[in-house]
Amino acid sequence: METTKTTTSTIIHKDQLLTHWLGHRKLTRKVLEAFPEKELFEFSIGGMRPFANLIKEMLAMAAPTAQGLATDEWETFDEEKKELTTKSSLLASWDESTDTIEHFWKTIPMEKFQQHIVSFGQYEGTGYSTLFYIIDNEIHHRGQGYVYLRALGITPPNFWEQY
Amino acid sequence: METTKTTTSTIIHKDQLLTHWLGHRKLTRKVLEAFPEKELFEFSIGGMRPFANLIKEMLAMAAPTAQGLATDEWETFDEEKKELTTKSSLLASWDESTDTIEHFWKTIPMEKFQQHIVSFGQYEGTGYSTLFYIIDNEIHHRGQGYVYLRALGITPPNFWEQY
Repeated sequence: METTKTTTSTIIHKDQLLTHWLGHRKLTRKVLEAFPEKELFEFSIGGMRPFANLIKEMLAMAAPTAQGLATDEWETFDEEKKELTTKSSLLASWDESTDTIEHFWKTIPMEKFQQHIVSFGQYEGTGYSTLFYIIDNEIHHRGQGYVYLRALGITPPNFWEQY
Repeated sequence: METTKTTTSTIIHKDQLLTHWLGHRKLTRKVLEAFPEKELFEFSIGGMRPFANLIKEMLAMAAPTAQGLATDEWETFDEEKKELTTKSSLLASWDESTDTIEHFWKTIPMEKFQQHIVSFGQYEGTGYSTLFYIIDNEIHHRGQGYVYLRALGITPPNFWEQY
């Protein structure tokens, strides 16, 4: 058991990293739910993308990264997702992505996190740096969603509500 | 050498986690630098805190967490920092915090990341969850700073400029 062997010299175990990631995804889902339908697709500050587009970017990154780390097969990066035109379709796609992440997570080899990879056929990094990047990107854009909600007079969920 | 022993079964090594953290701090420093003096302390959207106050919260969390993980001694959480009234003083405090983080990082025992801790005398978690939380909180609030800058007509640094 890898996790047993390295118990005292490991920063974060694989199951803990999944829990960490899924916790962020739960919070992002709550932020998505908090948006009114119209503003989700239209509201913007300073020329930035509406929150629906930021969610689509996250959808294009998350499950494909879990799949890529597990299988070495990377989809083409597609953040257009033109078929997602309603909040309910975004929420459904979000939940489907979460299922895909949980499915592939089990088969990601531990070695993959330290290996050099080229994600989406173009981004060089290690397995861990690629995964951390997409989690960080989700936090970054979700934080922007918080400002949109506040500007709309809506109280966002607390940052620590990752459950 | 702990890191050698666990090379193939470790998600992220201690030195890699420091590089990851410092990379985020470099980007946040660039966002801080991008703010005009007055707007840094006064501009706000939707009743949120000005970016200077978000930076003060980060300052209250970062170096004290490195120190706490290294020494088990936790300062009282202080995000007021009333003495920091200029951009230059915030930048100087940011750099001082970075030095403090680098100083204490070396002496954080590897075991600490998986141990149960109570940070700032009140927040329960593990060493890793506490550290991840404060890095995530920095990304979250920095993302809000991006919206402030865009609303002010200022182009923020690219998200991947963590160098």
